[in-house]
Amino acid sequence: MRMVDLIIKKKRGEELSCEELNYIIAGYCAGDVEEYQMSAFMMAVCFRGMTRAETAHLTEAMLHSGAKADLSSIAGVKVDKHSTGGVGDTTTLVVAPLVAACGGVVAKMSGRGLGHTGGTLDKLESIPGVRVERSVAELREIVERIGVCVIGQSADLVPADRRMYALRDVTGTVDSVPLIASSIMSKKLAAGTDAILLDVKVGSGAFSKTMDSALELARTMVGIGKRLNRRTVAVITDMSQPLGMAVGNGLEVLDAVKVLRGEIGRGDLLYEICMLLARHMLLLGGVAETEAEAARKLERALESGEGLRRLKLMVEALGGDAAYIDHPERLVRTRRRLEVTARRSGYVETLDALKIGAASSMLGAGRARKGDAIDHSVGIELHKRVGDPVASGEPLMTLLINDEARLDEALALADAAYSVGAEPVAAPAMVRAVIDDDETEAAI
Amino acid sequence: MRMVDLIIKKKRGEELSCEELNYIIAGYCAGDVEEYQMSAFMMAVCFRGMTRAETAHLTEAMLHSGAKADLSSIAGVKVDKHSTGGVGDTTTLVVAPLVAACGGVVAKMSGRGLGHTGGTLDKLESIPGVRVERSVAELREIVERIGVCVIGQSADLVPADRRMYALRDVTGTVDSVPLIASSIMSKKLAAGTDAILLDVKVGSGAFSKTMDSALELARTMVGIGKRLNRRTVAVITDMSQPLGMAVGNGLEVLDAVKVLRGEIGRGDLLYEICMLLARHMLLLGGVAETEAEAARKLERALESGEGLRRLKLMVEALGGDAAYIDHPERLVRTRRRLEVTARRSGYVETLDALKIGAASSMLGAGRARKGDAIDHSVGIELHKRVGDPVASGEPLMTLLINDEARLDEALALADAAYSVGAEPVAAPAMVRAVIDDDETEAAI
Repeated sequence: MRMVDLIIKKKRGEELSCEELNYIIAGYCAGDVEEYQMSAFMMAVCFRGMTRAETAHLTEAMLHSGAKADLSSIAGVKVDKHSTGGVGDTTTLVVAPLVAACGGVVAKMSGRGLGHTGGTLDKLESIPGVRVERSVAELREIVERIGVCVIGQSADLVPADRRMYALRDVTGTVDSVPLIASSIMSKKLAAGTDAILLDVKVGSGAFSKTMDSALELARTMVGIGKRLNRRTVAVITDMSQPLGMAVGNGLEVLDAVKVLRGEIGRGDLLYEICMLLARHMLLLGGVAETEAEAARKLERALESGEGLRRLKLMVEALGGDAAYIDHPERLVRTRRRLEVTARRSGYVETLDALKIGAASSMLGAGRARKGDAIDHSVGIELHKRVGDPVASGEPLMTLLINDEARLDEALALADAAYSVGAEPVAAPAMVRAVIDDDETEAAI
Repeated sequence: MRMVDLIIKKKRGEELSCEELNYIIAGYCAGDVEEYQMSAFMMAVCFRGMTRAETAHLTEAMLHSGAKADLSSIAGVKVDKHSTGGVGDTTTLVVAPLVAACGGVVAKMSGRGLGHTGGTLDKLESIPGVRVERSVAELREIVERIGVCVIGQSADLVPADRRMYALRDVTGTVDSVPLIASSIMSKKLAAGTDAILLDVKVGSGAFSKTMDSALELARTMVGIGKRLNRRTVAVITDMSQPLGMAVGNGLEVLDAVKVLRGEIGRGDLLYEICMLLARHMLLLGGVAETEAEAARKLERALESGEGLRRLKLMVEALGGDAAYIDHPERLVRTRRRLEVTARRSGYVETLDALKIGAASSMLGAGRARKGDAIDHSVGIELHKRVGDPVASGEPLMTLLINDEARLDEALALADAAYSVGAEPVAAPAMVRAVIDDDETEAAI
């Protein structure tokens, strides 16, 4: 087998076999397939796509490139949750402890933020003392003890993905459904849980700008799970505006605590999506038989404060100071707060998630490139959502600022994120679809 | 400017500017653009193509990556000739001395054979003593003295092309019209002649399998010449069957000598194509005003033996033993000759150039990869062409063999190249089009 022939085969739009995909990934890891061949191959995949079978075989080949986490010693059905990346999406910090509080078992390896999207690890690290780079043995120990833990991705899982991801980033081959799906699913499969809940974002702030592309990505990942015998369900949720009213690391911890305290509740977007995700995790984990039963258990865990207690236990287990969970406002003390007000009265027509995420990143909350230092306390508080009425002079958002180096740029971007029109606007649908099979039509 | 953004721009099908293409090529040569970025870019070009303006800008950027041969001290209009690669195509060895015999000036840098196609350098080297790796100064000196010289491509011309060509070869990005056109034209432009005649092959043995793709390649190259102020004409000729009746290095020198001696003449495919090319070179070189005038001059040069004399002078100038031009049969003495006969009576329906070229290469006449050693004396003599009647038991071809290691494989391939049917078959048209402008419709 020669790599050049396999590149040409894919370039012609033909289907590669399991053996051929194994050859590509094993050869790439062994150094027999060159970086410049891999990048040409991935560009051909961008144009030609892959069948469901090919994508599953690619995922399996990537999965076998490294170690797999063994969580089998932990009792119960271990459930993982993954979001394709959004703005103001602090759901993991709510959902993981809440599911554990209901008797579920949540073992999750998470990532860092890049570009306009945040990452759970960065949010956790805004709490002084927290250390997320932990071994699988530590993950096991913490989950056995308190039912929930979130740590950083182990370096020895899916080394093929780490190299392919870095290569895609510099060769313009990021936006391919089979490459994204295999990257996510190989890591989720290697992380060793029994079931996986995927939150696929759709809208201006997401990779999937349209419902069609979100459906394609969701079905592809659910299909991989099915073919590789891992229970997988995907929900498609709106990311045309930020999910929560807070964007920034400390700010999002603060919002998560508010949900767990019951200060943010029914009717709020973040709350509703957290409950949706948690219900499906309870179903996947076998803790509830129906969504209604799951909802009742979740309400009890919120009311009793057991969800909040599990978050504090997890923060402590990761070496953090849990006093910050009691006083999360301490996480967001910045040198300056800048209020942005509406210039006209009317209704919020758009609140662009991409622009808000990028503006927050410019203030120091995010990274332009891997390894950049970030400021956990800065970010943007939103006061209005799409559809909300607003009076001229009323606050739209507040910027939390330490370093003013790129403030003008960030402010212009954040300002452009909001548009206010004269006519009433309907809020966008929060949940677009739930997909538990890659072949049946999804309910929308 | 960042390479990744330019890759994405091309991937989206947008047109790159002159500055952007200069950045890519200069960056690649300087090591700022990585091999894996270049291969991803070229794969995107394979899918998206390039506009005429982009292709000309790319060619110019490649041209400026190295030295340019200065032939200005040679009097007269220097003419170059290039074929896109064929089987049994020994036209250069006929046309170059013949044009010089008529008063034209031919300075040509040539290449080596690869895969199923032969190369003029290899054919010249089948004559003992010939050394083709010469400096531009030597080229100038020989052309000034005898009006014609063919040498190897100088290593310092178009270094960008050398690296891009090697990269395309291992990344499945060979078959792209703008990449092929810019590769050929950057080398032809750097070689410093005043005019260029291109012989674009079409058919099973050529890169361009269809007339549409041959027209596209021809027009693209003529367009580059026009935009970069170099007089360029292209002819499209048939390569569905081998051009000459001999395939192999020494065998093709033998055939060239036969044409120059008048032993192969009117009605023969090789002869007719040689005369077509030579007529257009005389027109390009300003030696004749009309094709009819050019034809008369060529006939005189053949009859007087001046063409043959110029070939001998060139061989001597390159250090070769010109006695072999008087006795070229000495070039093809092999251990064994194997005749292949027809199994049925009828008419030759197909004579696949690709298969014959590959079979000859397997016998040792060609290279599987750059740098492989070749045997100049082996090859295949053809006795029948498409349309010829044949009786069962009559010879179709003769294989000239030294090493029998891959004989069975070569024989099977050569055998499969011929098909004989019951019904009379028309011979394919030899000349398909002459293109001297990239925008007007070509006469076919």
